[in-house]
Amino acid sequence: LSGTIATVDERALVRRLHARAGRPAAAVVLGIGDDAALVEPVRGELVVLAADSLVEDVHFRRRWTAAADIGHKALAVNLSDLAAMGASPRACLLSLALPIDLPLSDFDALIDGLVSLADRTGCPLVGGNLARSPGPLVADVTVAGSVHRRRALTRAGGRPGDDLYVTGLLGGALAGLRLLQAGPLDREGASPEAIAAVRRYEVPTPRLRTGRSAARQAAARAAIDLSDGLAGAVTQLTEASGTGAILDLAALPVDPAALDLAGTLGLDAVELALTGGEDYELLFAVPPRRRRAFEAAVKRAGETTATRIGRMTAGKSVRVATGDMLELLTNKGFTHF
Amino acid sequence: LSGTIATVDERALVRRLHARAGRPAAAVVLGIGDDAALVEPVRGELVVLAADSLVEDVHFRRRWTAAADIGHKALAVNLSDLAAMGASPRACLLSLALPIDLPLSDFDALIDGLVSLADRTGCPLVGGNLARSPGPLVADVTVAGSVHRRRALTRAGGRPGDDLYVTGLLGGALAGLRLLQAGPLDREGASPEAIAAVRRYEVPTPRLRTGRSAARQAAARAAIDLSDGLAGAVTQLTEASGTGAILDLAALPVDPAALDLAGTLGLDAVELALTGGEDYELLFAVPPRRRRAFEAAVKRAGETTATRIGRMTAGKSVRVATGDMLELLTNKGFTHF
Repeated sequence: LSGTIATVDERALVRRLHARAGRPAAAVVLGIGDDAALVEPVRGELVVLAADSLVEDVHFRRRWTAAADIGHKALAVNLSDLAAMGASPRACLLSLALPIDLPLSDFDALIDGLVSLADRTGCPLVGGNLARSPGPLVADVTVAGSVHRRRALTRAGGRPGDDLYVTGLLGGALAGLRLLQAGPLDREGASPEAIAAVRRYEVPTPRLRTGRSAARQAAARAAIDLSDGLAGAVTQLTEASGTGAILDLAALPVDPAALDLAGTLGLDAVELALTGGEDYELLFAVPPRRRRAFEAAVKRAGETTATRIGRMTAGKSVRVATGDMLELLTNKGFTHF
Repeated sequence: LSGTIATVDERALVRRLHARAGRPAAAVVLGIGDDAALVEPVRGELVVLAADSLVEDVHFRRRWTAAADIGHKALAVNLSDLAAMGASPRACLLSLALPIDLPLSDFDALIDGLVSLADRTGCPLVGGNLARSPGPLVADVTVAGSVHRRRALTRAGGRPGDDLYVTGLLGGALAGLRLLQAGPLDREGASPEAIAAVRRYEVPTPRLRTGRSAARQAAARAAIDLSDGLAGAVTQLTEASGTGAILDLAALPVDPAALDLAGTLGLDAVELALTGGEDYELLFAVPPRRRRAFEAAVKRAGETTATRIGRMTAGKSVRVATGDMLELLTNKGFTHF
């Protein structure tokens, strides 16, 4: 493989992408190659739409992150939005703004990274756009999904008294990012914890089965993904639901990799867990009487754990219990902008 | 209004966008502000998806084009893809990569330009993403539409013997672009033809009603939009349909503005009409027995005219009749890449 984006014209590049996009799913009536794609809706369900983009030197650096991982993450962050609605993926579109010095092998690898995750999650690539960029590489993905009208998990459904559950482990991805920012990483010589944290940052796993399982069992009332960090997610979930919340910091499921790296990096592991927006876990509001159903739904999904970290309250403030103290949560949520 | 993008954080910018996005349509169950949008599908119809982006210094220059026009065009080029499928718009998403020196007033105007067209075409803005750009402004739009399964106009439906019809007038937008490229335009002092050509380039009108009307009356067998120019569109339509074509150059509906400017700019008006990819008109393949139905459908749409410019043939080659001569069409189609 040789050459850069500059050596091929747009149509050749589209053909190249098309050849790598894999077999379309049965739901795809018409995929890449026409003015638009045609997708079969699911009878009785709503169409779910979300878009999210990765911008070079804002969300990733080409010298740190392999092209395949950029492709994976560009789709993963969108699938996380579907997961937070309890929706199932149906199709995705990819718009790329490509620097002309991008090696064709990187173009191929980026597509392959996206398509590999698309194949595993039932979210075929059905269209998009290729353009030249005079600056950064921009990968913008739109996902279309499907969810039953009465099962969709919005942010606004929470009620005072609902338990707050978070999936997985927190802080690992931000620890990985901080490690990358601290200097060149020797991947051969790095500790397993360091590699685990960096991989959590580079190739997040959207919690699709967990979100869908909780939604289908009507085991949660509201959900949001942690793309802005747990602090940001709690703030937005409570604002949308018109509630407050109280969080038990001691209950946070801090990623062992974050604990391990916090010392090395001179950081606070709990703060990594509270503000790390890159874990792409989910936060759920669960009515107390559905606690058992929710925990069973998460278990049935077989994807990750869920930890009760607090509850929604009648006030408007979000407070944090730290030992004997109650403190107001200042919004330290990591925002991508 | 003062300040630039650098002076506000992402959430404030989202609120700003949300406030300008207008009232959601009845089909929008959940719009901007959650992890994803929820849209009601049309019973018995397919979901139509397309994405297209405008990149600063590739597709537009900020010093030439008003921010409102960039917003308009970012949506218009996508609606043109829906028009070419015979589809109706349902919703759109906007992903912006924003240079931090962008004035907030330009941000507002861009959103307003998009929302204004969205309102007029029944295509509410339901979501998207805002990110910082270390380089160009990138506006990537995804549209979701709806079309009856047996009415969708793909590129592959043409048959030998079908008439080829093109909508509107051709070459005006490319003449306008060439004029902008020739040097600073004095909009006060410019001729009406010059202004008309530049406006055709800056604020194209998607032929939504025409595409939908032709599709609903089953009056065309295939369609494509002219985003790559007529030459490119004929090439792609015939390739997808497995046919050839013969075009009558004398029949091309050349835009009077292109004729007028061609002399001034030292260009060939017919070549402008053949290669201008910025008119965003539509090309249809119409079975001869549906000619009258097609012309009636275009008339009923009340949007523009359609001109018969040739027909599909059994061979694979695309030929151009110029007076007594038949020449092979070389693909001079304007590609955006």
